[in-house]
Order: sequence, then C-alpha cells, then structure tokens
Amino acid sequence: MKQDVRIGLIGTGFMGRSHAMAYHAVPFIFPAAARPVPELVADVSEEAARAAAEATGFRRATGDWRELVRDPAVDVVDITTPNSLHKEMALAAIAAGKHVYCEKPLALTATDALEMTQAAEAAGVKTLVGFNFLKNPAAGMIKRIIDDGGLGDIVHFRGAFDQDALADPSAPFSWRFERAVAGAGALGDLGAHIISLAQYLIGDIDEVSGQINTRITERPVAGGAAGYGDKAAPDAPMRAVENEDEAQFIMRFASGATGTIETSRIATGRKLWLSYEITGTAGAVFFTQERMNEIKLYRADDPAGQQGFRTILTGPAHPHYANYFPIPGMGLGYNDQKVIEAHELIEAIAGDGPLYPDFRAGWKTCRVVDAVLRSAEERRWVRVGEV
Amino acid sequence: MKQDVRIGLIGTGFMGRSHAMAYHAVPFIFPAAARPVPELVADVSEEAARAAAEATGFRRATGDWRELVRDPAVDVVDITTPNSLHKEMALAAIAAGKHVYCEKPLALTATDALEMTQAAEAAGVKTLVGFNFLKNPAAGMIKRIIDDGGLGDIVHFRGAFDQDALADPSAPFSWRFERAVAGAGALGDLGAHIISLAQYLIGDIDEVSGQINTRITERPVAGGAAGYGDKAAPDAPMRAVENEDEAQFIMRFASGATGTIETSRIATGRKLWLSYEITGTAGAVFFTQERMNEIKLYRADDPAGQQGFRTILTGPAHPHYANYFPIPGMGLGYNDQKVIEAHELIEAIAGDGPLYPDFRAGWKTCRVVDAVLRSAEERRWVRVGEV
Amino acid sequence: MKQDVRIGLIGTGFMGRSHAMAYHAVPFIFPAAARPVPELVADVSEEAARAAAEATGFRRATGDWRELVRDPAVDVVDITTPNSLHKEMALAAIAAGKHVYCEKPLALTATDALEMTQAAEAAGVKTLVGFNFLKNPAAGMIKRIIDDGGLGDIVHFRGAFDQDALADPSAPFSWRFERAVAGAGALGDLGAHIISLAQYLIGDIDEVSGQINTRITERPVAGGAAGYGDKAAPDAPMRAVENEDEAQFIMRFASGATGTIETSRIATGRKLWLSYEITGTAGAVFFTQERMNEIKLYRADDPAGQQGFRTILTGPAHPHYANYFPIPGMGLGYNDQKVIEAHELIEAIAGDGPLYPDFRAGWKTCRVVDAVLRSAEERRWVRVGEV
Amino acid sequence: MKQDVRIGLIGTGFMGRSHAMAYHAVPFIFPAAARPVPELVADVSEEAARAAAEATGFRRATGDWRELVRDPAVDVVDITTPNSLHKEMALAAIAAGKHVYCEKPLALTATDALEMTQAAEAAGVKTLVGFNFLKNPAAGMIKRIIDDGGLGDIVHFRGAFDQDALADPSAPFSWRFERAVAGAGALGDLGAHIISLAQYLIGDIDEVSGQINTRITERPVAGGAAGYGDKAAPDAPMRAVENEDEAQFIMRFASGATGTIETSRIATGRKLWLSYEITGTAGAVFFTQERMNEIKLYRADDPAGQQGFRTILTGPAHPHYANYFPIPGMGLGYNDQKVIEAHELIEAIAGDGPLYPDFRAGWKTCRVVDAVLRSAEERRWVRVGEV
Repeated sequence: MKQDVRIGLIGTGFMGRSHAMAYHAVPFIFPAAARPVPELVADVSEEAARAAAEATGFRRATGDWRELVRDPAVDVVDITTPNSLHKEMALAAIAAGKHVYCEKPLALTATDALEMTQAAEAAGVKTLVGFNFLKNPAAGMIKRIIDDGGLGDIVHFRGAFDQDALADPSAPFSWRFERAVAGAGALGDLGAHIISLAQYLIGDIDEVSGQINTRITERPVAGGAAGYGDKAAPDAPMRAVENEDEAQFIMRFASGATGTIETSRIATGRKLWLSYEITGTAGAVFFTQERMNEIKLYRADDPAGQQGFRTILTGPAHPHYANYFPIPGMGLGYNDQKVIEAHELIEAIAGDGPLYPDFRAGWKTCRVVDAVLRSAEERRWVRVGEV
Repeated sequence: MKQDVRIGLIGTGFMGRSHAMAYHAVPFIFPAAARPVPELVADVSEEAARAAAEATGFRRATGDWRELVRDPAVDVVDITTPNSLHKEMALAAIAAGKHVYCEKPLALTATDALEMTQAAEAAGVKTLVGFNFLKNPAAGMIKRIIDDGGLGDIVHFRGAFDQDALADPSAPFSWRFERAVAGAGALGDLGAHIISLAQYLIGDIDEVSGQINTRITERPVAGGAAGYGDKAAPDAPMRAVENEDEAQFIMRFASGATGTIETSRIATGRKLWLSYEITGTAGAVFFTQERMNEIKLYRADDPAGQQGFRTILTGPAHPHYANYFPIPGMGLGYNDQKVIEAHELIEAIAGDGPLYPDFRAGWKTCRVVDAVLRSAEERRWVRVGEV
Repeated sequence: MKQDVRIGLIGTGFMGRSHAMAYHAVPFIFPAAARPVPELVADVSEEAARAAAEATGFRRATGDWRELVRDPAVDVVDITTPNSLHKEMALAAIAAGKHVYCEKPLALTATDALEMTQAAEAAGVKTLVGFNFLKNPAAGMIKRIIDDGGLGDIVHFRGAFDQDALADPSAPFSWRFERAVAGAGALGDLGAHIISLAQYLIGDIDEVSGQINTRITERPVAGGAAGYGDKAAPDAPMRAVENEDEAQFIMRFASGATGTIETSRIATGRKLWLSYEITGTAGAVFFTQERMNEIKLYRADDPAGQQGFRTILTGPAHPHYANYFPIPGMGLGYNDQKVIEAHELIEAIAGDGPLYPDFRAGWKTCRVVDAVLRSAEERRWVRVGEV
Repeated sequence: MKQDVRIGLIGTGFMGRSHAMAYHAVPFIFPAAARPVPELVADVSEEAARAAAEATGFRRATGDWRELVRDPAVDVVDITTPNSLHKEMALAAIAAGKHVYCEKPLALTATDALEMTQAAEAAGVKTLVGFNFLKNPAAGMIKRIIDDGGLGDIVHFRGAFDQDALADPSAPFSWRFERAVAGAGALGDLGAHIISLAQYLIGDIDEVSGQINTRITERPVAGGAAGYGDKAAPDAPMRAVENEDEAQFIMRFASGATGTIETSRIATGRKLWLSYEITGTAGAVFFTQERMNEIKLYRADDPAGQQGFRTILTGPAHPHYANYFPIPGMGLGYNDQKVIEAHELIEAIAGDGPLYPDFRAGWKTCRVVDAVLRSAEERRWVRVGEV
C-alpha cells in the first residue's frame, strides 16, 4: 500500500514552512508508509512562490493558488493561509476533486465551516483540519485509555489554553486582533485547540454559558505584519482591538459530563498552557502541553496507600512513538506533531482510510466557539445546536 | 498586652478536638502573645462533655450549651457543631455579649448569615469564621504580594476545590448529603473555602453563572453517623442525596477581574485540591493546598530568558512562619493553620484588633454560594447582590 | 495498657520546646495510647528552668540536671542539650535506671556512642534517638513497601541532605562550626539524618569512600549564641571554621546494594533537601522532605504504557496518619513528626515494646560519619567496622 | 558565508538515520546558514548502502567506507558505526584531510581517543563528537548563565544518567554488553553524556574515586543484533555480561569544585534521567533531560520571601530556539538536538569557526571514564592525568 501522495501547498509563512518540513521528515519516521511528494507551492506572487519552493524543496511553484487547485499533479491541497481565506480555497479545491488539509480554525464562522463540510462530504474527498495537538502521542494514549474504559464513565472535563504571548499592552496590533481576518480572538485562536481536544476525548458539547473580555482595548500599530515578539515604535498610532483577550465558559457534554474551558492570550506566566484534567468514575488524567511528553494518570483501582497520579513519559507503547524511538522519555517536540499529522494525512489518502479531525469535526469546534460568543453576548445558556 | 482569653467550646467532634489542640499549642508557638484558656466545654450530655473536658484539657464541662453561652468566665464562644446549629448558638452568644468563633460555613443560607452578621456588628463583639486555609502562611504571603502590587492589576482568578473523598458510590449517606443539616453540598462544604480565598485575595464577587450536578443520586444508609471512610452494609437501604456533588461557575469580580470556580466531592484522584491561579498584569501566582508549603510565583519583570514560576517554600519571611522555624522548608501541617487561626482570634480579642474573616466576610461567602445555586436553578447570570 | 509516663526534660532551647509541645499534643492525636506527663524540666539555672516549666507546662523545675536524672518521679530522661553533653547525661540517666530519649547525633564520636549503647543495653533501659524524619508517615510507608517486597531486591540508594541555611559567608560563627561542641559539620548535623534513613530503609552500610570540603573557612563572630538568620556586626572579628561545609561519599551496603550520599550546609537554593531515591529490581521510590507529604513510587509491574512514578499523598493507609485525619492530603508538618516520635517513645515504655532508632542504631550512624571522615582524611576506602 | 558542505555518512542504523534526518531539517530551521549536502553514504554492502541512500536522500552510495573517506566530493566524514570502529575510520578520514563528525563515545579507550585527537589537530581538520545533549537550548542557556556569573563561583556538581532500558534481566545480550565492541558499560554509554556535560559546564575534572557494579551478570542470547525492547527465546543460552551495569564516583574539578556522578542502565523507573544540579555561591540550576524543555534556576539575589527555583521553559531568548519558534514553551524534541548539532557542524566548517565538543573534549571524557574504571579496580583515588 506504500504509495506517493502529491502535495499542493498554499501559503509559505510559519505554518507553511512547518508543513513543508513535516513532509520531508515523514519518510524518515514512517519509512514503511505512504510518502508525501512536495509537488507544487503557491504564494502571493510567482517570485515568492519560487523562492519558497527552493527553500522548502517543492518541485514547482505558482503565484496563483487557483492554478494549484486545478493542477492534475496535486492530490491534496494544503491550506496554510490566513483564516479568512480558508473557505474560498477549500471550496475551490473540493470542487476540483482534491483532498483538503486545512489549518485551524477551519473557518471564521460555523456557518462557513458547515458549508465547507457539506461540500467535502458531497464530493467524497478526504479532509483534515490541522489541530496538531491531537497528534501528540500523549493525546492519542489518553484517547485510548478513555476508550478502553480506563477512566470509567467520564464525569468532568476542565480545560484551558493560556498564553502570555500578547500580555504586554505594547505588543503591536496584528491580524490576530482583526475580526475580519482572524474571526474570534483568544477563543478562536487558542480556545479552538482545547475545544477540539474536548470533543476528541469526550464527545460533543451540548450547551454552554460563557463570558468574554477584551482587557487591552487598543494596541500600537507597527509597520508591516506584526509577529510575536515584534515591537511598535514609541509614537505609533493606536488601533482598537476587535476581538476578545480571554474567554471562560461552563458546559455540558451530550454524554452528561460537565466541564469548564478557559482561554487567554494575556495569561501572564503561561506559555503553552494547553491543559486538561479529565475526571472519570474509575480514574483521572491530567495533561499540559508545556510538558508535552508527560501524561498524569490516576487509577482508582491502585491498592490503598499506593494511589496517586503517575507521571508517565511517552514511549513506544503510545501511538506513533515507536516510529521515533525504542525507549520512553526521549522527547518529541512540537514539530513532531506536525510530522505525525502529515503522516496520517498521507496514509489515509493512500489507503483510503479515515481521518480525524475532518471538516465535520472542525465545524463542530467552530460551532462551540460561536455558541460561546453568542452566550457571552446574550448573557444566557446557548445550545450548540442553535448556531 | 499579653493576656488570657477564656474559651467556651461547643462541640467536641473532629473539629472541636482540632480547636482544643490548637489552644494548647498557641503558647508554644506564640509565647509572647495572648493566651487562650480552655475554660468550659459543652456537649450533648454532661457525661460526654465531662469526658471531652478531660480529654482536651478544658477546666469545666456542661451538657447545656446555653449555660456555656451565659457563663461569665467565658470570653469567646467557639462553635464547632453541625452547620444547622450555628445560627441559634451564635445569636445566643452575641446576645450574651460574647465574642464568637464559628466554624464554616457560617450558616445554611445567606439570609441567616446576614442576620448573624448584623447582630454581631450591633453588639460590637468580635467574630471569626474558621476558614483556616486563609491562615496558611502561603496564603498570607500571596495576599501580601498582591496588596504590594507584585502581580500588577488582577486580571483573572481560577479556583477549584476538588476531593474524591465521596467519589465512591458505596460511601454511605451522612449529614453532608442532607440539605436541612448541611445546606449546599460540595459548593457549601468545599466551594465555600475557595470562594472565601477568592474574596480574601481579590475582593467581592459581583455576578455569577453556574451549574450544579448530583451524579450519585442515592447512597446506602449506614448505622450511626457515617464519617469519611466508613462503609455501609451490603444490603443497606438507599437514601436520596439532597445536594450537589459538583458545581462550576464563571464570575466577574467588582474590580472587573474575571474568574472561574469549580468544586467537586467526587473528583477521582484529587485529595485536597484547593487550588488557585491568580493572573495579574505584572505576575501570576499558583497554589494548591496539596502542596501547602509551596507558592508558585511568576514575575513578568524577571530578565528575558530567566522567566518562570518560582517554587517558593514557605519560610521566616512569610506571615507567622518565623514563630515556628528559623529556616524555610520545614513544613507546616493542616493543624498548624488552626493554631495560627486560634492565635489571631485570641490576640485580636486581647488587643482589640481586627479579625478576618469575620461574620461579614462569612456572609459574603454564603451569598456567593446562594447566588450560584440560584443561577443554576434559573439558568441565568445572577448578581450576588440579588440574594 | 493506657498508662502515664513521666518525662524529665533537659534543655529548653528550640528542640526542648519542640519536645514539650509534642508531649502536649500526644493525647490529642493518640487518645487511646499511653500519655506523657511533663514532670520535671532542667535548665542551666533554676530561674531559667522555672520559667521554662511555666512556659511549657512542666510540673517542676530544677537548675541541676543531675537532680533530674535521679528524681524518682521521672521515668524517661529526655536530652535536648548540645551534642557534646549527650554522653555524660545519658550515661548518668542509664546509671539511674532511666529510659533515655536523646537528640541526634547521639554523640560526638562513634566510640562515645558505642559506650552509651553498651551501657544502655547492659542496664536494660529503653533508648530512642531523635531522628524524627523516620517518623514521617511517608518514611514509614516507604519502609513498609520495601519490607513487603514492593521494590524487589534493593539495587541502589541515592541520598542527600542539602540546605543553604549557612551558604552566606556572612552568617556568623556558632557552635555548629566548633568541633569540640558540634563534632562533624554538615556530615554530623545533616548527613546523620540521611545516613539514619539509609540504615532504616536498606540496612547496614559496610564501606565508604568519601571527601569533605570546607569552603567558607572563617566566619564573623557575633555576640551571644548565633542562630540561623542572625547577623554579625560589619567589623566583627573572624573565627576559623573547624568542620566541613559539605561531604560526599560512595558506599556499599552489607546487602550488596550500592549507594551515594551527599550533604551540604551551603547548597544554595535547597532548604530541607533531605531526599532519597531507592532503586529496586521491581520498583523505585523517590522522596524529599521539602514535599514531606508526598511519596513518589514506581512499580515495574504496572501495565506497559501506564508506568510512571506515582505521586502519593500521605493518608490514612500510612503509618500513624489515620490518627490525624480521615482523608489523604491534609498535610502533616515537621512538628507532627516529633509528636509521633514522642508517642512511640511513651507507648514503648508503657507497653515494653521495641523502639527504633535506639542507641545501637544511633551508634551505627555515628560510625558511618566517622568512617567517612577517616576515608576523607586518609583518601581511601574505609570499612565501617574499622571505626 | 552561506555555503554548501558535503556529507559522507558511514553507518545507517538508528543514529545514522537520525543524522540524515537532521541534515534534511537544517535548511528549514536555519535557512540563512550553510547547508549540508547529503553526498555519499557507506554501509556494509553496496546494496545496503544503496537502499539507505534512497531512504535517506543521499546522492550516492558505497559498500566501502574507505572509498567514502577518499571521495573528493566529501567535505566531512560522519561516523555513526559501532564504537569499536570509530578510531580506524576517523584516522583514515583525518589522513584524507576530511573534517570528522563522530558519534560518542569517541573511542574505546582514552589512549585511542588521544591518538585521534592528536592526528586531527596535526592535520588541522575540524572535529565534532556527537554529544547532542549539549545542543539542547536548555544546556546552552545554562552554560551562558554560568559564564555570565549568574551562579557565582561553582561549588558543586551533582550529575546522573539513569535508565531502566536494560533493567529487565531477560533483556537479551547485545553489543552493549561486550567489552571489545562497546568498551565500558553504563559508564561509557550513558555516563559519558553526563561527564561531557560536567566538563562543558564546569571544566576539567581532576581526580575521581569510583565504584562499578555488574548486577545482572549474564543475559540470554537472542538471534541477530538485539535492540532495546527485543526478547530472547525462553530457552536461549546465556552469555556473560562483560561490563558494568552501574557506576558511581565522587570527584574534584580543576576549579576546586566538588562533585558526584552516577549512572545506571538498570535504574528502574528512570527513562532518560540525564540530570544535574549545579550549585554556585550566587545561585543554582537543576536540569533533567526527562523534561528537556525546562530549566530550574535559583537566584540567591531574589528578594527575601520570593526565592525559589524558577521553572523556565526554553524560548526565543535561549540559544538556537528562536530559529524554531517565536514564543517559549513550544517544545523541542530529541531529534531537534541533532538538527542543532548538524547545523553547528556545517556552519563551523563553512565559516571556519570553532566547534565543541571536538575530539580533544571527547578525549577528556574518555579519560574520566578510564580513570573511574581504574579507580574502581584499584580501589583508590585516581588523578585523571594518570590515564
């Protein structure tokens, strides 16, 4: 079943380069599996695309993403452009019969995401949304423990995704703060990750009651596209922030489990605090991405006096890890999650297998984001099915 | 100002004995301060009281708490009886002009707590509610850091009090599950502690949106008063649980800070997970009572590349600790919190100084509990001032 | 078997007060067991002794410790004086037929400790050395796990006792730095604790190769007895430090297990880093007194993919804890170790049961200290039996 | 200065593939720097080499490593073969005027390593030994803190490298247990890593006193080359283990600092416990590779009451990290260390800059290994200069 899958990559920013690097790494880590072929890359101009192709080892380049979408040598279209462009590109790729790999969040609104989902399902193409934290072997192992009943019935989910990357009020205005480009703020950018994990591990969320807050209401404008760590000039003009710095909500899952989720981009001290505690009747799990190679597992059936959260280092017994190393504790990094994600994509396309999270899953995440926003605006419980 | 303060103790269960032990320890730890005198103890019968007096070193005993309240040799009435008795006893003590030291929660409802507060303030007696976790030097230090501006403006409070003491469905029915005796469930018993900490550290809570959940809806009835760890007979009859196993709420403080609080008595794996993270514009603090001698402190003004949460072991630089040990890291225990609490009580009475948390603070905690219960029932945001 | 045991306490400094407080707490924590009676206290003068008696609740006082030793109303002599006085006092108490409770280290040299041991064994009196860290329920539980075979055969012991209490070169000269009063430096003061734990948990140590180092060779002289945290005047004269700041040794146990022990009183950052990792063929344990209520336990028989060190909070399933609290995680403190130690002392005397660590065990600790000092001086492996 | 450097890789096992993957990743992570060109790969046969070339993207293949060494299109010879082959291959490469990148340990004995070092220095070629843990940004940051005086004068180093990969007595015999192929056991395989870190961070080690121990004296023979996790047949014949399972030593650095190092390949529970604590007069650092993205830093100049070890997540302020991610906490993995190592190699060759650890540094590590072995055999302190 080993087979080549040809990639058409749109976008060559941080995330585009991360995808390209992953494609090159896949054959090293998964030598027995299908291989990605870096076929064609598109950027805003042909020059930019050609430079990117050279830098990232893609065979061909184009300044027109529509050309890429139509190219017969492209099996899967990989979209790493700003959020606001996802919909148009994905729909075009689907219309061209291509499989689609789209960065998160899938779309600016749940409505858009649903349209994309329905188009993909009607066309019968495979889709994958780039929620790479689900690809961490730790997450896969936690999923397996839950599915095997290791935690019993799930009682509660407590999740957070906190960062302080934008806690400094002098951090310049960027696309992240602009509703038309980014959509929601912390909730869409960071919260979507922890929501997607909640759905992956526990299932559908039924209703929410939330609040949002924009604490830093305006930011200085720096010339050019401002990235993390950039600085504005001291006399830079200010621009109003258009989306939330933080959000919190309580929720109920379809299963009856309760939960809370919080997210903040101004959480002083937290760097990648994508964390969750899942409480079941027979055990519990705690995880934080800041220690991405550790699972904390509590089993209620441990003998009296010997009960406690185990600190499990990921190892060969966990999904995909054995492809990396023969012993536990060696340590995967963020980029390895992308390698595993790319591998799953290629393997599913080559072998016609299932992919998760697909557009439907991505839409469900958008739907929760929108439900929380509506709940915060209308100050009431909102059923996710309403949006 | 060193002086004796005579104690009248009502109740000789676990908490009563804990108070008695604290009174005996105070002169060892605080030799230069006012001293508690274990004067009179009341229990349900004279025999029980006399046995308790002998066991705990109290001078005299009575089977009638009303006698104790009236006794001229009693300066402060210490109430450690079930929650449902707090109100009557406290009002009688106040009417007799006594200072009152009452275990938490202050009352079954905010209305009752307000009546007690107003009576005490009108009478001019001193009051203290036994939220002993506020007396941990770690909590005192965190308060000091916040008040000194060490965290900047407070942005967010994330709190929890989770235990698994009652996670086992076969744990027998007890007074804790009975509304008329205990009032609220996890929210009143455990949640009150984390709410009191939120108020102590951040200030008044303005509005809440919450949910509650009773997952184990009935429990077996064991003969006698069932304590933690007791077992019911296999064929024991079942009795319906009358209050919640878990509660979660989002909130806004009067200061504008946002927050979430969760509590559960069925949180598998957690033993004394009274924890909070406080995020400010200049720093952050994390604390859990499971590591009661540690403060995690993040300072945003640490040099680049050297920023991270510090694990600070409590030591002589923190409130009250120097009375125990001359070097950090020696470790206080739960009972030491009660010693500090008793010391503050005695010292304030002897020296006519302030006490916290007094009945007013205790009432504010009850008010938040009631607001969350109403919010959960009516499925809407509730302003704390409504209740 | 409940019975009174009358205490004669010599010394009323920090440790003497700690013992006195423990005697008062014993009946609260162990109500069903034998009770200590604070009978007689001795200090350097009658005035000092009388003040101490009043402060600590002892019935009588004396300015002459020899009187105390002879007093017929004293069952056990409790020695909390400087190390250099232990021998004379203990021998006098033994000669008077008293049981002896002596603070650690038992003596300045192994030779002295052996003389004391032989005298006590010949007289048939009970003895206890105050290595209170052995009384932590965590240590007791680790002992039980090992004895039950939970770790398999013991392969290795890695121990340390590091503090930074004296890391500051401006910390004044005190008795701790004077060989005639304190004996060894860090090795005798701190190292003795970790050696005693190694012997308690693993057994006899057979041979050692060690080094010692005095890094801060002189210290300023402050007026009076300098305690932790005291400061000398800026122009204070300097005095040469007479014993080691740090020591490290490798060793072999009689069982064949290997090990290392390190100790330092100038270990910047460490407060009470009395820590050990015990590796067996079937499991491992890690413990540090800085988190005195936690045991880290690894079991090799946990299922693949679920193996990791458990963080176990001490609880009712562990030795003595149930006398404190009905649920785990409540937290004992340093002083609680002394309460348990005092309880074991009284109970063994009342019930004629065994006591550990007795003088023989205390001598074995001294012997290892002396062997390391000789090894360091002669730069060779030394068999513990040589000294 | 951006330039191509052509690689000749010998060996295509786990480590060879890891190097190959690193070469492919370098241009993605360090786009502005010199680029490795995967030119020629050698394996035991031409078929094997050709398969490896295809799998790893090398241009050409050969079944004769001597051909590779002589190939004019090869700038640097990369040796990833078994330890016993390092010497011959490196000397041939040096003789051919090639730069050499050799996996650790550099040689089976210090004598061999010195010969290699002198040859390389005489030839003026650049050398690098693959101690990749030095390339972790955390290690680089700790080096920087020490060099900047952040810890003051270094007092003590406590290091360990413990694994339980071979703790199971049924793990089959492999090359690791054979003296002629592997040289030393745990000390050479694992201990060399922590020794190299000690030398990198603190400087030369002057003298040692150590012991070694082989606890599992024979192991079953499995067919073929046994790797981690392989199993032998139940009736497999046994073969004697030829080198040590564990080693411990105490030491003194040239600077006067003291230290201890331990290593074990049978340390139940530990997976990649490459850990060290460095104590200075002004601060301390703790690190373990099991949490490879964290530095624990204590600064004695933090304000009183706010002192504690900081948990610093590696980030853009640390060496090389900014090439990966713009915010801290994203997480590098083990393979990223190899990418950084490959980058430093290529960059130094292209730019004629310095490289560390070079053969001289690798020799110094071998010398300490040999000194510990001699110390253990002769049961005495050994000066490192003796061997």
